[in-house]
Amino acid sequence: MMQGYFKARNNDVVVFDAFYRENPCGGGYAIACGLEQVIDYIKNLQFSADDIRYLQSLNMFDEDFLKYLSTFRFSGSIYAIPEGTVMFPREPFIKVIAPIMEAQLVETAILNILNHQSLIATKAARVCYAAQNDGVMEFGLRRAQGPDSGIYGARAAVIGGCCGTSNVLAGQIFNIPVKGTHAHSWIMSFPDEYTAFKTYAELYPNACILLVDTYDTLKSGIPNAIRVFQEMKDAGVKLHNYGIRMDSGDLAYLSKKVRQMLDTAGFPDAIISASNDLDEYLIETLKIQGAKITSWGVGTSLITSRDCPAFGGVYKLAAIRNEDGHFTPKIKLSENTEKVTNPGNKEIYRIYDKETGKIRADLICLANETFDENEDMVLFDPNETWKRTRIVGGTYTMRKLLVPIFEEGKCVYTSPSVMEIQSICTQEKATLWDENMRFVNPSNVYVDLSDNLYDLKQKVFNELSAAKYHIV
Amino acid sequence: MMQGYFKARNNDVVVFDAFYRENPCGGGYAIACGLEQVIDYIKNLQFSADDIRYLQSLNMFDEDFLKYLSTFRFSGSIYAIPEGTVMFPREPFIKVIAPIMEAQLVETAILNILNHQSLIATKAARVCYAAQNDGVMEFGLRRAQGPDSGIYGARAAVIGGCCGTSNVLAGQIFNIPVKGTHAHSWIMSFPDEYTAFKTYAELYPNACILLVDTYDTLKSGIPNAIRVFQEMKDAGVKLHNYGIRMDSGDLAYLSKKVRQMLDTAGFPDAIISASNDLDEYLIETLKIQGAKITSWGVGTSLITSRDCPAFGGVYKLAAIRNEDGHFTPKIKLSENTEKVTNPGNKEIYRIYDKETGKIRADLICLANETFDENEDMVLFDPNETWKRTRIVGGTYTMRKLLVPIFEEGKCVYTSPSVMEIQSICTQEKATLWDENMRFVNPSNVYVDLSDNLYDLKQKVFNELSAAKYHIV
Repeated sequence: MMQGYFKARNNDVVVFDAFYRENPCGGGYAIACGLEQVIDYIKNLQFSADDIRYLQSLNMFDEDFLKYLSTFRFSGSIYAIPEGTVMFPREPFIKVIAPIMEAQLVETAILNILNHQSLIATKAARVCYAAQNDGVMEFGLRRAQGPDSGIYGARAAVIGGCCGTSNVLAGQIFNIPVKGTHAHSWIMSFPDEYTAFKTYAELYPNACILLVDTYDTLKSGIPNAIRVFQEMKDAGVKLHNYGIRMDSGDLAYLSKKVRQMLDTAGFPDAIISASNDLDEYLIETLKIQGAKITSWGVGTSLITSRDCPAFGGVYKLAAIRNEDGHFTPKIKLSENTEKVTNPGNKEIYRIYDKETGKIRADLICLANETFDENEDMVLFDPNETWKRTRIVGGTYTMRKLLVPIFEEGKCVYTSPSVMEIQSICTQEKATLWDENMRFVNPSNVYVDLSDNLYDLKQKVFNELSAAKYHIV
Repeated sequence: MMQGYFKARNNDVVVFDAFYRENPCGGGYAIACGLEQVIDYIKNLQFSADDIRYLQSLNMFDEDFLKYLSTFRFSGSIYAIPEGTVMFPREPFIKVIAPIMEAQLVETAILNILNHQSLIATKAARVCYAAQNDGVMEFGLRRAQGPDSGIYGARAAVIGGCCGTSNVLAGQIFNIPVKGTHAHSWIMSFPDEYTAFKTYAELYPNACILLVDTYDTLKSGIPNAIRVFQEMKDAGVKLHNYGIRMDSGDLAYLSKKVRQMLDTAGFPDAIISASNDLDEYLIETLKIQGAKITSWGVGTSLITSRDCPAFGGVYKLAAIRNEDGHFTPKIKLSENTEKVTNPGNKEIYRIYDKETGKIRADLICLANETFDENEDMVLFDPNETWKRTRIVGGTYTMRKLLVPIFEEGKCVYTSPSVMEIQSICTQEKATLWDENMRFVNPSNVYVDLSDNLYDLKQKVFNELSAAKYHIV
């Protein structure tokens, strides 16, 4: 396609929006994530001599086009919702303004990276919400869709709220906490469970989490763990950050029994951690049943977002810049009204309730529109236009969500560290209502169109429909 | 854990098996895939000065252990089921025989890589089975779980049976066919659909697949496409490898209408290709309804294996080598009998029907067992031992599935090219019965244990159970 534009001598400046249509897992929000890797990609985007030779070998590309590619650098502008921010369907989370060849070239990487990391960050936020204030560890590398998926998935999981990962390489690359314990094979490699526990406790007295379910949790694992803890105590070890992990069985029933046994034996501060195919739904129901677990290791369901393993970000042409600098708006029709895209060069404003700091609504408008926070604002649903809400002037504040990342090819943005983004995300999640965070049938935050954008959309839609299906 | 073994001065040679318990997507088989990347990983496995400094900074590791890591190289032996081979639950698809520290270190990479690629290769085989002899293109990079997941997923998809990928980088790395066409944005960037088609046809007369659903497939897209094809024909272009793609609407209804329109207009050889959230189930039902589609682009559902995004490979200790060279078998107990692992140093034999070349059963046995193809063989289900089948001597052939990959640290295996592995996989799929390939409730290939292995398993199980839950 890029060669197509090149040969058709079409390199108009265009606006492309990346947005998604449905929140992952039927939830009420998503978390923006992956921008740092998109920036790295764009900064380093060029074609090496090897790349050119490969493309040449396909016999699909002309020499003049390959020559153009050999000196290619991205020269456009990019605006994005910063990482860690909560976002909603139909909002452009990335806006690319660039010559069409360049805008088209960067599509796949932008979607791939942001779709992946936003998915996992959102899943992590859901899991952490279910776990209330307990720590959630990312444990999924073995089941991630390839090594990098594990690494960047761990990054996204920590941004979404996880307190650490078992992925040591991710820890090294992103400077995020790494934690882990031993596996069943550790126990099995010793003549008996007690000796395995005892050896581990002597090696790691300050991070002594013993896996108790290799043989039988209540009849073997816990008695042996208690024996080892008691021996440590008797030997004068000041026990802290110690406890047990369960990886099988009924975690509600077992954790309550285990808590009793540990308390009775004089270890009320022993951590009870659990793993085994956990996800937000199971953690929520275990909490409801009074499970005595305070630390959760979540693997497959988090690192693959198992019940919803793809984030549906798409990348659509929204406008073409004319020679006079104005934008001609573009929309894609669809049999489904909700799938008709929003035309033009747009901005998103988030409207917060001044008193609570919670989100009232988001407003998508044209890039040149201005608003006065002291005036009343009437919001209406673009699909159900009879639904109107008046927000009284002075009771709300507005914030522009899209920030400049590249301006005419130059990167103008510095990514925060992963742990800083995690803090941003914590603040962001606090701007949601509990009703938005519910897993079953959550309330949706309204994402409305400004009057100007709504009118423009109607106009372009009607013009296109009147064009008699484009048969010329 | 590795440091634990180091400090406990335990570096016994052990046998670890990687195996899985359930075929992906409720199917009757899986395709082994990813070995080439596992080999690369093991060959290059070492700790750089940077790595050591990072580990040091965690304050978890002693200097003597880090010194050991700084000169670490894998010194063990690895056996594997070759890529492209069909495999079944409970079979060790990788067997590692190595000092326990090394065997433990390589666990995560082995599982991550093989779980991912075997999952996608299996999904691709399912999708290609549904598509019968039509071409299936891998189209999913935008929705893959990160860039590498897209690249290695494309590799696995081609091994599983796809005829190509839209992922150009995967094409470059693995020398596999790349194919693609234009997107809706191509159409939208022109004043009208006809001009967009016409321009594309002039640029790519030999690969002219026009996307017809930007405005209206039957009333605009197809009439415009036919006009362009006719103009090409009139201009003397010899049309081949041309046609249309649909990305929305009811593909059964539309494809039949489109086929009629193209045939009537004199283009009976125009390709009808389709995409839009396809998977094996939808393709199968479209085929049943007589859809006139002969080329399928499959994206999200293939590259993420959407309905089953994780392959459940696990890695379990099976034996410890004594000083005398014999192996002490090890098993992991479980409340679920089927989850009790198979102990010892094992082999897998595949038993083929001599006449049809189809698989009769697989047999897991101890490494030193021998069999005579001229003698009758009695197979029995290890969980339902009353189910017995006699296979008459002379009517079957046997093949060892595990081949040597590393011997004492040295790689002794050369991976075939991806396209060679695809051919192997095609032959492998032909050894399955249709009944194994059905999507709903498929027949399972029997995976049986030899008498010796079964007896050993019972013995170890009983000893362990008699050990009174390991409280010492």
